[in-house]
Amino acid sequence: MLSTSTEIRVRYEETDQMGVVYHAKYFNWFEVARIQLLDEIGIPYKELEKEGYFLPVLSCSAIFKHPAQFDDRLIIKLEISLASLLRLKVAYKVLRKDLMIATGTTEHAFISKDGKVIRPPASFIELLKQTDTF
Amino acid sequence: MLSTSTEIRVRYEETDQMGVVYHAKYFNWFEVARIQLLDEIGIPYKELEKEGYFLPVLSCSAIFKHPAQFDDRLIIKLEISLASLLRLKVAYKVLRKDLMIATGTTEHAFISKDGKVIRPPASFIELLKQTDTF
Amino acid sequence: MLSTSTEIRVRYEETDQMGVVYHAKYFNWFEVARIQLLDEIGIPYKELEKEGYFLPVLSCSAIFKHPAQFDDRLIIKLEISLASLLRLKVAYKVLRKDLMIATGTTEHAFISKDGKVIRPPASFIELLKQTDTF
Amino acid sequence: MLSTSTEIRVRYEETDQMGVVYHAKYFNWFEVARIQLLDEIGIPYKELEKEGYFLPVLSCSAIFKHPAQFDDRLIIKLEISLASLLRLKVAYKVLRKDLMIATGTTEHAFISKDGKVIRPPASFIELLKQTDTF
Repeated sequence: MLSTSTEIRVRYEETDQMGVVYHAKYFNWFEVARIQLLDEIGIPYKELEKEGYFLPVLSCSAIFKHPAQFDDRLIIKLEISLASLLRLKVAYKVLRKDLMIATGTTEHAFISKDGKVIRPPASFIELLKQTDTF
Repeated sequence: MLSTSTEIRVRYEETDQMGVVYHAKYFNWFEVARIQLLDEIGIPYKELEKEGYFLPVLSCSAIFKHPAQFDDRLIIKLEISLASLLRLKVAYKVLRKDLMIATGTTEHAFISKDGKVIRPPASFIELLKQTDTF
Repeated sequence: MLSTSTEIRVRYEETDQMGVVYHAKYFNWFEVARIQLLDEIGIPYKELEKEGYFLPVLSCSAIFKHPAQFDDRLIIKLEISLASLLRLKVAYKVLRKDLMIATGTTEHAFISKDGKVIRPPASFIELLKQTDTF
Repeated sequence: MLSTSTEIRVRYEETDQMGVVYHAKYFNWFEVARIQLLDEIGIPYKELEKEGYFLPVLSCSAIFKHPAQFDDRLIIKLEISLASLLRLKVAYKVLRKDLMIATGTTEHAFISKDGKVIRPPASFIELLKQTDTF
């Protein structure tokens, strides 16, 4: 299983008048974690797009257990797996120290510039195979 | 079942460099639809907060079927129901004309200023009863 | 002078934990007003991009006089003029009823797909001439 | 002159369909830089709010010289000064390596919970005095 752990710090902009982070902002942090995972496995997303691969979000979800607050340093843990040859599943945990703040998921497919679903880059599949993600 | 239908127009700010709407933005639209539903049933959210009721999002999800694009006029359809006395469920459909763009859900509880789960306002429960949402 | 007036309603997402609208969000509303102006003069921005014209923001500013709050219905007034053949200036006023909430400005140039500054579409110049904006 | 330098990394969420960062997002980065400056001088903004000080934005501006792009690592340089006893001025530079991407300004006042302009905390004034910011 490919995984990573990223720290983010909550921006004032991400809070709302309830005094906590607005729920939709968590998905921005999930993105930050995905970008880092791709960096770590040597396939930066920016490079992927240059080579004609796009990774849109097909679905997403989150469960909020405790509110995140301004200035919190949060750890975003991420695990990625192939649901099928054409579909990636990513699971997230958001932690403040040992406290689980939220969990979430996203699903993705590799698509081409013109929106067609395509196989992931060979290097990516190879990597997932090596890590027993299949 | 309480329900409503709201039109939004996609802002440039809501797009990303894939040329479509960034996935997290749909949850902002779901909020717009919820606010309108509460208006329509005579319990504006602004008034709820004044009376000490808050409606945080406990969970949320979305499935993206077709990309929404800049300047699209989209219809957000919403249905609300009580999952239990203390938990609201809301289901959303996002349509561009007859094309289903996305579906989604959110769950909410009424909480007090200090974060305790409380029963919904009596007028709200009464209304849901009348509409057979129980 | 080309001008228009647009109503927006403040979204919860646009507030921060100070209980008012986060300052950067006003620029999203300015965008909404610009899009409407272009609609009204028969040159929708979406069409402009299709024809190879882009209108990036070269500079922007805002002065905040009174806080905008959740659920406010605000009027965004806009006046557009040509600072030169190649540079548009837009001035904004944000009003809640008669109260001036904020003022702002943006500057724009027409650029081509590859980022070169180009002359505005002929129809656009013609229109500004007719309205004594030159 | 109090100053600091912060690195941010451009999020996909911050781009728009022009393929560059949406202009309003720069103000979020300016906020990140301000928060860091306050940390560095030992007056974290979170603590300020706990003690009843709020620092709303009274005005803001930005000039965009070159587009920022997804995944850019940008340096936000910030200089803060007191325009008067009651008004802070902050100037920003956004750099990608040696290239100046944008400049900007914000103005702030310290206000109390009920919105009245108040004098900055004594420790803050002392600090600005020591650094010849007066």
